[in-house]
Amino acid sequence: MTGMPTVYGLRSSGNCYKLQLLLDMLGRPYRWVDTDSTRGATRTAEFLALNPNGKVPLLVLDDGRRLAESNAILCYLAEGTPYLPTTSWDRARTLQWMFFEQYSHEPCIAVARFICRWLPEDHERRAELPRLRERGAHALDVMEEHLSREPFFSGGGFGVADIALFAYTHCAADGGFDLSRWPLVGTWLERVRARPGFSPMSV
Amino acid sequence: MTGMPTVYGLRSSGNCYKLQLLLDMLGRPYRWVDTDSTRGATRTAEFLALNPNGKVPLLVLDDGRRLAESNAILCYLAEGTPYLPTTSWDRARTLQWMFFEQYSHEPCIAVARFICRWLPEDHERRAELPRLRERGAHALDVMEEHLSREPFFSGGGFGVADIALFAYTHCAADGGFDLSRWPLVGTWLERVRARPGFSPMSV
Repeated sequence: MTGMPTVYGLRSSGNCYKLQLLLDMLGRPYRWVDTDSTRGATRTAEFLALNPNGKVPLLVLDDGRRLAESNAILCYLAEGTPYLPTTSWDRARTLQWMFFEQYSHEPCIAVARFICRWLPEDHERRAELPRLRERGAHALDVMEEHLSREPFFSGGGFGVADIALFAYTHCAADGGFDLSRWPLVGTWLERVRARPGFSPMSV
Repeated sequence: MTGMPTVYGLRSSGNCYKLQLLLDMLGRPYRWVDTDSTRGATRTAEFLALNPNGKVPLLVLDDGRRLAESNAILCYLAEGTPYLPTTSWDRARTLQWMFFEQYSHEPCIAVARFICRWLPEDHERRAELPRLRERGAHALDVMEEHLSREPFFSGGGFGVADIALFAYTHCAADGGFDLSRWPLVGTWLERVRARPGFSPMSV
């Protein structure tokens, strides 16, 4: 990939933060266009023309080509770097954790955080929290089990699956998860924070 | 990949059907171990030792290596075949649709089908159906918009993203979606059914 990419995103969204983290670790310059999905900025006609699914993050290249879905963008930006494995098996294992993140992890842990942080205390969606916390705890159990055998999630080494999983795991307490229940997850979070180029999420 | 892979799966699950469809299109022999997740077969100690996340499909290779997550398995099996693009941009666009499928499509369209087909008529989860149908209709709108510009979802051609999206789109009527509202989706389904090696889902 050539040129300087533009990211449309909300800095406090874990899905958007993934791209900040990878681009900072790669030391790659980029433009960031603040796009506040919590205030309707992804539902304007202008934004929907860029991404008909009405979601951030969105990557736009110099020549106008656009790519949606945080984890697909991570794979694209990491192609040819140490953050995406090259063997088909290690790449597949990396993708396995990235699909796990979007299907079994984010819809519980990120959604619990959203309800706790952005919705009023008497909002009816608070009723979802017990079920979200039960399912989110299961996702953390699955990560803990993996970390008893391997130090990272990206085909044996550190890479895009770790970045994808770090995004909402490191702030899971915002949604009411007590991370001390998962000590190996805690030490993995520290290993990620110690990586060269690491940058924290804006809160 | 060498040898004959084994798929643990439920034939009537769209996520499992994806693997049947790709393997049949590739003309590749495989073993299928019926694993009925609707009757607890993914919650046994024996199965959880294979996949700690307790889900099908699961791919097991001759040498015992295991891979979960239907869309990660599709990418692995399609590596080196015409069903997975080789350029980084087309591969990224393919992954974009596969993450869309797992995040914005399956959790609405497949879950509506599950509630309608497998739960009793008076089950409390029926209350979720209006919201699932609204969000599922949006996913079909996004597909329809894409199909107004391109014939397939896998980086310009037919491939694993089409297989992933076909799995639950073709049976969306089971969940109460009237596919006649999305005519381009309807003609795309016919194009997929016309591909060499196509096999229908067991119902």
